[in-house]
Amino acid sequence: MKCLIIAAGEGSRLSHRGDSKPLVPLLELPLIERVILTANWTGISDFYIVIGYNGEKLRKHLNQFSQNKNLKITYFQNNQWKEENGLSVLAAKEKINENFILLMSDHIFNKSILAELLQEKIVDGEIILAVDYNLKNKIVDIDDVTKVLVDDKGRIVNIGKNIKEYNAYDTGIFLCSPAIFEALEESSDNGDTSLSAGIKILAKQKKSRVFDIKGKYWIDVDDENAFKKAENILFANLKKVSDGPVSRYLNRPISIKISKYLLKKSILPNQISLFSFIFSMVGALFFFFGGYANLLIGGILAQMASIIDGCDGEIARLKFQTSEFGGWYDAVLDRYADAFLLFGLTYYAYFLGENLLYLFIGFLAIIGSFVNSYTADKYDGLMKKNLTRGKHYFRIGRDVRIGIIFIGTLINQPVLILFIIAFLMNTENIRRILIFYNKK
Amino acid sequence: MKCLIIAAGEGSRLSHRGDSKPLVPLLELPLIERVILTANWTGISDFYIVIGYNGEKLRKHLNQFSQNKNLKITYFQNNQWKEENGLSVLAAKEKINENFILLMSDHIFNKSILAELLQEKIVDGEIILAVDYNLKNKIVDIDDVTKVLVDDKGRIVNIGKNIKEYNAYDTGIFLCSPAIFEALEESSDNGDTSLSAGIKILAKQKKSRVFDIKGKYWIDVDDENAFKKAENILFANLKKVSDGPVSRYLNRPISIKISKYLLKKSILPNQISLFSFIFSMVGALFFFFGGYANLLIGGILAQMASIIDGCDGEIARLKFQTSEFGGWYDAVLDRYADAFLLFGLTYYAYFLGENLLYLFIGFLAIIGSFVNSYTADKYDGLMKKNLTRGKHYFRIGRDVRIGIIFIGTLINQPVLILFIIAFLMNTENIRRILIFYNKK
Repeated sequence: MKCLIIAAGEGSRLSHRGDSKPLVPLLELPLIERVILTANWTGISDFYIVIGYNGEKLRKHLNQFSQNKNLKITYFQNNQWKEENGLSVLAAKEKINENFILLMSDHIFNKSILAELLQEKIVDGEIILAVDYNLKNKIVDIDDVTKVLVDDKGRIVNIGKNIKEYNAYDTGIFLCSPAIFEALEESSDNGDTSLSAGIKILAKQKKSRVFDIKGKYWIDVDDENAFKKAENILFANLKKVSDGPVSRYLNRPISIKISKYLLKKSILPNQISLFSFIFSMVGALFFFFGGYANLLIGGILAQMASIIDGCDGEIARLKFQTSEFGGWYDAVLDRYADAFLLFGLTYYAYFLGENLLYLFIGFLAIIGSFVNSYTADKYDGLMKKNLTRGKHYFRIGRDVRIGIIFIGTLINQPVLILFIIAFLMNTENIRRILIFYNKK
Repeated sequence: MKCLIIAAGEGSRLSHRGDSKPLVPLLELPLIERVILTANWTGISDFYIVIGYNGEKLRKHLNQFSQNKNLKITYFQNNQWKEENGLSVLAAKEKINENFILLMSDHIFNKSILAELLQEKIVDGEIILAVDYNLKNKIVDIDDVTKVLVDDKGRIVNIGKNIKEYNAYDTGIFLCSPAIFEALEESSDNGDTSLSAGIKILAKQKKSRVFDIKGKYWIDVDDENAFKKAENILFANLKKVSDGPVSRYLNRPISIKISKYLLKKSILPNQISLFSFIFSMVGALFFFFGGYANLLIGGILAQMASIIDGCDGEIARLKFQTSEFGGWYDAVLDRYADAFLLFGLTYYAYFLGENLLYLFIGFLAIIGSFVNSYTADKYDGLMKKNLTRGKHYFRIGRDVRIGIIFIGTLINQPVLILFIIAFLMNTENIRRILIFYNKK
């Protein structure tokens, strides 16, 4: 599907950050690149961009960008960029004769919104606007946001910045049929060049519907205040529902801070995975040396590696560098790291007392941990399916394992570590088998 | 999609096996149940069955069967079952007004044929017949098979049992539009009540296309000779392209023989998985006892368990009892079994010489084997995608691992076993990482 992005305005309220608002970097990526890459993630690769103020600079930048990313970009110049944004949409009229996605170059949003909007069936002559029903959304600048009044059938009744009665906010994410162009021509002939005016005309014909974003994040990055909020939202959304308790309360808050720093470097996510792996392996090595000091150093290194291990995914998601290989590679390295840490501890414990039982407990910890990871994908898949938004689910995984190693080494209890991990992991594995047995 | 199955004929050439041919059990499942379950596997659950000879017996049986399997079956009685089979298809005319699948109750075939045929886009007024271009197919009864002459555009030119010029065989698997009914009425008015006569009428209008089954198996189970062939084909197709070398040449041939025996029992696939697991664990236990005799017993038990481990999937596939849970459960148990066998060997080796190096090698064998299984799904997926039909791909997996344990215990070389497994598995894991790195 084609995607039209309007990027003609001056955006003077962010001019202190650069002379082209779409090129203002938000967490190291220009705003418009974020919007394009979000759409590209859903499978869109054919872009139409309306430029205006400082248009040549933007065009030059995006030419390079589209070559690197293998995207097709067609440009329209809107010389009336001082007028309202409806004219920018109208500029694309001759080139778009089918349904298309319409986005704002300065609206950042959760990519699932667009992925789900694309699943909507659009009727001829209709437009669908993604709206936020959460009127208490603190991210929204209430003076600047476009308000929408939606009836109980999901149809738009009224839309505008200054309407008194409303029950939703316009997120600036649209699925349009070409009927929008005629509506905009009519409204601008009537003297109103805003996009909302065109929508209102279609609304009168009962041709404007809404799509509920169900609380997912979106933000209009219009001024410094919104810019800061956008940074915070992007960081906050690095948390995953599959994060276990140790990750949620310890690892993730720290790893996000590290990622903030690493973002500015040119380090790649796979390099971070490898770095974290080496950290773990060095930690395991210390266990083999024996003695409390080495045990402690090993435990601290393991926990640090576990924290850093969050950064690869965070950087990848923030920079749109996620890949199937990356996630898999990280997981395989984690399996080796886990096994070496536990084997190191087993070795350490065994030579404390030459007790064969310790060897056996260590082995049970290793096999239990491995099967815990082996069953994780399937378990996560099932749990996510039944999850209410904003909630977490019970998860014993790698973060818990390494957390136990860390605390256990602090209090010098290597045998206890192995015993708890062996017990916890194998019990959890049996629980998972029973869950799936009952679900089948 | 609806599925019409014709099951009205007498099938006298198999009457020594039962008085209702569709109910003749082929590997413990009545022929027609195999056909229905094959179609059901592709997602079809709405069946229309034309009965005739001994129809009440068949209807009673299928009533029970459809209740158990939660299928909808509508019956038509064709009293003219002594005539050709076109009349059976015509019997469904009033009830089927959309595209549908047409199958013969006595044609057994690879379920992928139907799954792929269902992907074909059928044009209004058209029928598509799955054909076998392999004229040297030894399974085919050349005197009885319906021959097809196909032009270079994939259109049927001529069809019939006695045509001289032909380049394909009719497999009895059709994707039809309702136009077939009018064609059959016309042909039976002309005095030919065969299905082929109807197809010929559509062929003249260029409305009959073929679909190439590309060498997948199919067989018309018409007489004792074909019945025996069908049994052999079903067994031969239990081999999997993901079978490793030890599985291909040793385990699979034996496990198929065991499955032949187990088929007649009411044992469930998951019970076989558990049985094989217990066998392995007992084998591992013998390793802990020490001494060559115990080593040998453990190795033999492990290899036997590995062979039996093939039977769960074989029985499941033959009886249409495959499930997502079953495959996953089997894999999880295998991981535990592998680990205990290798830990048992490590324990055995370590106490031969109290050599710490053996402990380390044993650990490397365990972690290498884990990660080998952890990466297997992704590796198999990639390899299968690029595989030519009938070929295998290079695969080091569980069959190789257990095979090495078996041979190593025979020649009393526990340390060598661990060393080879550690080396082989970890090298293979690195190779897989490199393969995926280069593919990304």
